[in-house]
Amino acid sequence: MNSIKTTASASEIIRRNGVVRAGTRMVPEEVPIAFSYGGSSHAVMMGTPADLEDFATGFSLTEGLITSMAEIEAIEVLQEGDGLDVQVTLAEDKEDALRARRRHMAGPVGCGLCGIESIEQAMRPVPDVSGVEIVLSAAEISEASNALNSAQPLHAETRAVHGAGFFIPGEGLIAVREDVGRHNALDKLAGAVIRSGRKGREGVVVVTSRISVEMVQKAAILGSPMLIAISAPTALAIRTAEAAGMTLVALSRGEDFEVFTHASRIRMETVADVA
Amino acid sequence: MNSIKTTASASEIIRRNGVVRAGTRMVPEEVPIAFSYGGSSHAVMMGTPADLEDFATGFSLTEGLITSMAEIEAIEVLQEGDGLDVQVTLAEDKEDALRARRRHMAGPVGCGLCGIESIEQAMRPVPDVSGVEIVLSAAEISEASNALNSAQPLHAETRAVHGAGFFIPGEGLIAVREDVGRHNALDKLAGAVIRSGRKGREGVVVVTSRISVEMVQKAAILGSPMLIAISAPTALAIRTAEAAGMTLVALSRGEDFEVFTHASRIRMETVADVA
Repeated sequence: MNSIKTTASASEIIRRNGVVRAGTRMVPEEVPIAFSYGGSSHAVMMGTPADLEDFATGFSLTEGLITSMAEIEAIEVLQEGDGLDVQVTLAEDKEDALRARRRHMAGPVGCGLCGIESIEQAMRPVPDVSGVEIVLSAAEISEASNALNSAQPLHAETRAVHGAGFFIPGEGLIAVREDVGRHNALDKLAGAVIRSGRKGREGVVVVTSRISVEMVQKAAILGSPMLIAISAPTALAIRTAEAAGMTLVALSRGEDFEVFTHASRIRMETVADVA
Repeated sequence: MNSIKTTASASEIIRRNGVVRAGTRMVPEEVPIAFSYGGSSHAVMMGTPADLEDFATGFSLTEGLITSMAEIEAIEVLQEGDGLDVQVTLAEDKEDALRARRRHMAGPVGCGLCGIESIEQAMRPVPDVSGVEIVLSAAEISEASNALNSAQPLHAETRAVHGAGFFIPGEGLIAVREDVGRHNALDKLAGAVIRSGRKGREGVVVVTSRISVEMVQKAAILGSPMLIAISAPTALAIRTAEAAGMTLVALSRGEDFEVFTHASRIRMETVADVA
């Protein structure tokens, strides 16, 4: 069981408006979280020790180890020293496939991209979501990102974690997950969505963070045709979303936002010419 | 040679104050950057294609592959498809040590932490910097973070990248590096510092980003006794800085800041009691 807390109170000395005083601040915890498949350690990430079944499910999905919930037989969370070991048991054919894949992974190991060793692997093809039909109004874009901002208990306490939400038109945000790492937050959300029995194609992924290419990859693997971010995208994220048929909305703040790709999924009032 | 640009102009549809119009925005590039040692691929990271010699040097240092500049014989940057392959040649004994280390790394590979497979490795011991004597005034803390904010050309253009700077009391910021990834920005800075012939213990690392444990690890490996961040720290980063004897300052904005560990390196006016 996971008895590790998600926040801690830190003592500090605060200088504000020229006055120096002692104080305390709530800060997010950060622990090593290992994922083991079939008893073998596969990956370790630093993350927030919460929603670990969602995290394991979403990580398994976005890393291509599974394609549906049914392929996970069991998830068990063990405390190991200062960290957590999440033991995942896959369906037998998936375990076999993973063992075969591991034999090919011997040798120099990768970094930052889950064992990726080559530039080709880093630029892996992203699932095409161009056929997924969802239309949001401008008001719904703002509703989705504003709702995310007010549905983050850990961020409200610490002002220092990322959030990811899943917004279904007509239903609102059906899930929100938080983590000190933005990739982790999105993996946790992906796991929460498929564990709830919903499909990625039913809704829109909303995140607080910047959009790098991995965020587009993960949203596309979940099957969602639209990604809304409160922060800005990279050029590669935009090109990848364009190629995948995904609508990429960023800098979504209050009622303002910017649409970088596939704007046809957004019902807007008027498009004026640039002056 | 690296002919890949660091920014791109993206077309977009902008909704602002209820008005919708076409526009463009400068966004940061993001490319796969592979590091190869002795001709074998070691790690791939997504990053900003600039300052690659600094990046290779800093990555080699903070990953423990080298302990000084003298152990790097050559760095060559090759363009490979959409990415960059940075070929590093280490001194002969370091190449041998790396080959031996690789033989032990066969098997399941790690993620996000440069090939780390276990929780123990993720919690690697951090060098002790408690003996490093540097004292900054409150005004110098603010000077360091404010100077960083105004010394980031890529961020000024895109508002979407992280920065890391090295501040020496009496000299100011002697180096600033930027990247779409905060770990990359700090690795590039570490490389820039040791390539300039300076020592980490001579100054203070200043970053725009949040402080997770890896940022403390990297600053300590560089040898700097103080880390200043514009954003917030995690609980584990605070504990790690405390144990390493490092002064951790965060939420440094304007003239305000908060000190979480080893405040004795900061010369402040008065410390009032909490009311």
